[in-house]
Amino acid sequence: MAASFFPRDEYFMRIALREAQAALDHDDVPIGAVVVHEGEVIGAAHNERELRQDPTAHAELLALREASRALGSWRVLDAVLYVTLEPCTMCAGAIVLARVPRVVYGTTDPKAGAAGSVLDVLAQPRLNHRPAVAGGLLAAECAMLLTDFFGSRR
Amino acid sequence: MAASFFPRDEYFMRIALREAQAALDHDDVPIGAVVVHEGEVIGAAHNERELRQDPTAHAELLALREASRALGSWRVLDAVLYVTLEPCTMCAGAIVLARVPRVVYGTTDPKAGAAGSVLDVLAQPRLNHRPAVAGGLLAAECAMLLTDFFGSRR
Repeated sequence: MAASFFPRDEYFMRIALREAQAALDHDDVPIGAVVVHEGEVIGAAHNERELRQDPTAHAELLALREASRALGSWRVLDAVLYVTLEPCTMCAGAIVLARVPRVVYGTTDPKAGAAGSVLDVLAQPRLNHRPAVAGGLLAAECAMLLTDFFGSRR
Repeated sequence: MAASFFPRDEYFMRIALREAQAALDHDDVPIGAVVVHEGEVIGAAHNERELRQDPTAHAELLALREASRALGSWRVLDAVLYVTLEPCTMCAGAIVLARVPRVVYGTTDPKAGAAGSVLDVLAQPRLNHRPAVAGGLLAAECAMLLTDFFGSRR
């Protein structure tokens, strides 16, 4: 993948990584996301599926909802969403619905990724919005959190 | 589409239709959903995107979250989700994540439907759950609500 990153991308992905680590406190799969609007973090969340027993409480969805509250609008424009794992179908769909202009993700998800691995929702020409997408940023660190988590539960 | 319906499906779709109508009170696109577990409605919601200014506040997502709260689990098992419009990518993804066994929808969504119109998330063999799907129930009534809504805004 020919991903193009900007100098500040790594800074924000490290914030997403810290969010991911916070999920470990409640034994949730460590995935984190942040939404950045004009250089400022307006949404930051981690996976809380187990904590909330909510199938929709993925990091991206929680961060997007926080961002839309901050903006007072369901359109999350002029923003970048950073997430440690390739978004699933639900989260990719939410990114399209929110008109997020750009998505940066860490490691790929060969089982459920919807930015090219299983489906490519973010590049689907028939949907009414297609964000710019760059994957693979800090991929090893993002993946290590997940392999450590699943390894410790075996 | 060779959809197979059960006698009670129409009863529950009419509840979803009433939910859809309630969205008109706050000028949201009239889409409604209910989740039925062992014959009982455990989640009922309508589209509140404009009301909440939340890009994720689709009827299905809100109904699923209510259902998972009622069950105390992110797995919405032994349940049927009824929705007046073919689910979008986000909602179809959430249905898969929640392991909902069966989905019944009303009218199709040629622009964004993810149960066969634009994508077919609910039948995607590489995802780890595939619900039974039946579309077209009370389709004319479900569609009329939408055409009336968009017609009145022209």
